[in-house]
Amino acid sequence: MRRVAVIGTGHSKFMFNSEKTSTEMMAETALDALREANVQPKDVQAFFLGNAWGDFEEGQATLQTYIANEIGCFNIPATRVEGACSSGTMAAREAFVWITSGLYDIVLVGGVERATTLPVPLATRVFATCADSRYEYPLGFIYPASFGMLCHLYSKTHGIPLPRLKEMMAGVSVQSHEYAMKNPYAQIQKPLTKEDVLNSPMIATPLQLHDCCPFTDGAAAIVLAAEDIAKKLVEKPVYIAGVGQASAGRISSQADYYPRIRARELSSQQAYKMAGLTPQDIDVCELHDCFSIAAIIAAECLGFFEFGTAGAAWEKGATRADGKIPINISGGLKAKGHPVGATGVGQICEITYQLRGQLAEQGRQVEGAKYGITDTMGADGVVTNVILAAQ
Amino acid sequence: MRRVAVIGTGHSKFMFNSEKTSTEMMAETALDALREANVQPKDVQAFFLGNAWGDFEEGQATLQTYIANEIGCFNIPATRVEGACSSGTMAAREAFVWITSGLYDIVLVGGVERATTLPVPLATRVFATCADSRYEYPLGFIYPASFGMLCHLYSKTHGIPLPRLKEMMAGVSVQSHEYAMKNPYAQIQKPLTKEDVLNSPMIATPLQLHDCCPFTDGAAAIVLAAEDIAKKLVEKPVYIAGVGQASAGRISSQADYYPRIRARELSSQQAYKMAGLTPQDIDVCELHDCFSIAAIIAAECLGFFEFGTAGAAWEKGATRADGKIPINISGGLKAKGHPVGATGVGQICEITYQLRGQLAEQGRQVEGAKYGITDTMGADGVVTNVILAAQ
Repeated sequence: MRRVAVIGTGHSKFMFNSEKTSTEMMAETALDALREANVQPKDVQAFFLGNAWGDFEEGQATLQTYIANEIGCFNIPATRVEGACSSGTMAAREAFVWITSGLYDIVLVGGVERATTLPVPLATRVFATCADSRYEYPLGFIYPASFGMLCHLYSKTHGIPLPRLKEMMAGVSVQSHEYAMKNPYAQIQKPLTKEDVLNSPMIATPLQLHDCCPFTDGAAAIVLAAEDIAKKLVEKPVYIAGVGQASAGRISSQADYYPRIRARELSSQQAYKMAGLTPQDIDVCELHDCFSIAAIIAAECLGFFEFGTAGAAWEKGATRADGKIPINISGGLKAKGHPVGATGVGQICEITYQLRGQLAEQGRQVEGAKYGITDTMGADGVVTNVILAAQ
Repeated sequence: MRRVAVIGTGHSKFMFNSEKTSTEMMAETALDALREANVQPKDVQAFFLGNAWGDFEEGQATLQTYIANEIGCFNIPATRVEGACSSGTMAAREAFVWITSGLYDIVLVGGVERATTLPVPLATRVFATCADSRYEYPLGFIYPASFGMLCHLYSKTHGIPLPRLKEMMAGVSVQSHEYAMKNPYAQIQKPLTKEDVLNSPMIATPLQLHDCCPFTDGAAAIVLAAEDIAKKLVEKPVYIAGVGQASAGRISSQADYYPRIRARELSSQQAYKMAGLTPQDIDVCELHDCFSIAAIIAAECLGFFEFGTAGAAWEKGATRADGKIPINISGGLKAKGHPVGATGVGQICEITYQLRGQLAEQGRQVEGAKYGITDTMGADGVVTNVILAAQ
């Protein structure tokens, strides 16, 4: 199979209340990625965009076509993919196949969301359009409720009393805030203590405010290229070693498997298999911590810890930059932010920075990282993983 | 390149006011397609769905994941693509690349829309989310207005007085209604005369009601497979010989090129080149007649007629089933209907029927058709073309 590399990255600051439109945010970061990749807009053969709700947020669907035109990529195929919070990674996976197939050599990938245009109650409703709308959303299964339920299930399944689990979950958020303070792109840059988490307002029992990621505006972009071209254009291409994607039905169809997420286990297995790697080979991970419990579950499903042990691992520092498996050294969705369509592309940028070794100045470089994995989960189980390799 | 074939089709009746949800419509047609392809749900390796506004129509985004689960395609990668009215064809093009790359062997493609859940004023607003929302929609550039403007431009550019052009345009709608009456899947099955068109209510000068396609609910599905597998499963696989896709900026960026649609010319050139064919080789065409003027422009951009001559060609019968280039023998968007996400997949079904030679009973078979092309245009110029070959 023809190898595909990341040769350029662009990353907006993740924030509340962007004054720029999605098209403007995306155009800026896309042009940054092209500059870093040493390619001109006319060299780009296709554009894939992850975006979940441009129609609700700005009255703008099909924004990929206007963005392509805006940055001078005239008339190229421009495709928007939507899989809720996995949209960005799905866009990257489509770009990957067009290059590995030999049909294209250079493809631009973007992700963007401007969720904070919406007032919180409406944003919550719009996000819930990705939950099953006929049977489960009407019963109250918006995402905080679903993940609240997963806390209870996790507690019961693994025999960890809820107060103890909540302490572990708090540790996840605390670590994320600590690293976000070192990440200039992060949305929330203030310290957080375990007490802050446990004293924060209740959202959906047992999830409190600081167990939950924020609504976010932001954009991220990467340029992908075939290996031979990548080597000519940049000094340190970072390769896509494996990709995986899986889906799931509504929550009720997954009841017997919960709190494990089967789609994540299958998706990551696809990626590991394609890369010829195992979880033990991975040096750094960006995973989908939309809620603190989600991080714990994801780390286990990705194969880093035995089931029921990830919360304790976080407490022991195993997930820190110098730990056994550094996780969300960016600040994660919790503190770096979660601009839905951009989240997965932002994760690929972050792992690229780590594998290039460019984060020492920020005090959050994972030393000697050679392999990294990204993980996004949309809706009730649209999971996409990308494994990146330093060479 | 590994050849890819259509081995199964599923097609709902296109209609007003479906009582079924998008998920239900899509599941039914997908299962029909799997049956026709002689494959089981467990054989399907991925699902690509074209859908434009499930979130607005039913409060349901990310519906691909629930549909995959509903039909027993558990945990497969399921990806929704959105490019307005091109969404379905874009889904087919993504499926194509995954098979031609060798990564998958059997992939399901679906398209669905349930637009008539929305009252007409709201549907019109929702459709307009695909127009440029910052500069052009606020000026009134909803689609009837845009295509109304194209009538004036076409009239001026080609020196055809507007009343004469309107007669030609009426001929497009009349032919579509005639063939739709022979198509059991068609939404509108009643005769239409030129006088009916010219006496119908004015929508956006000079477009009258019967120059415009209706809002539609419906679904369509195809199963794609690699050539070697296709030959084992079905008697008459129909091959995808070429695909093309191109984008465009907002209307104002295209002013110098209008009334020609540059994205369409580039997209179809890609498809012709991949197929090693020219417009003269094509035996049957399904093109995007969202408005009667759109059909005339599309037929010219696809290379079937000199610019400024397609309207007269329609009048002379060149586009009839026994004409020089049979166009929209299904009834087209005007009368077969236009369930946005499903439209392109429905076109591929229709060309597949024609190339299999199975429409004689319906009295609308294009005799000896070997090559067919589909054409969809979303928003202000997201164009996708697929060329199909009987062998």
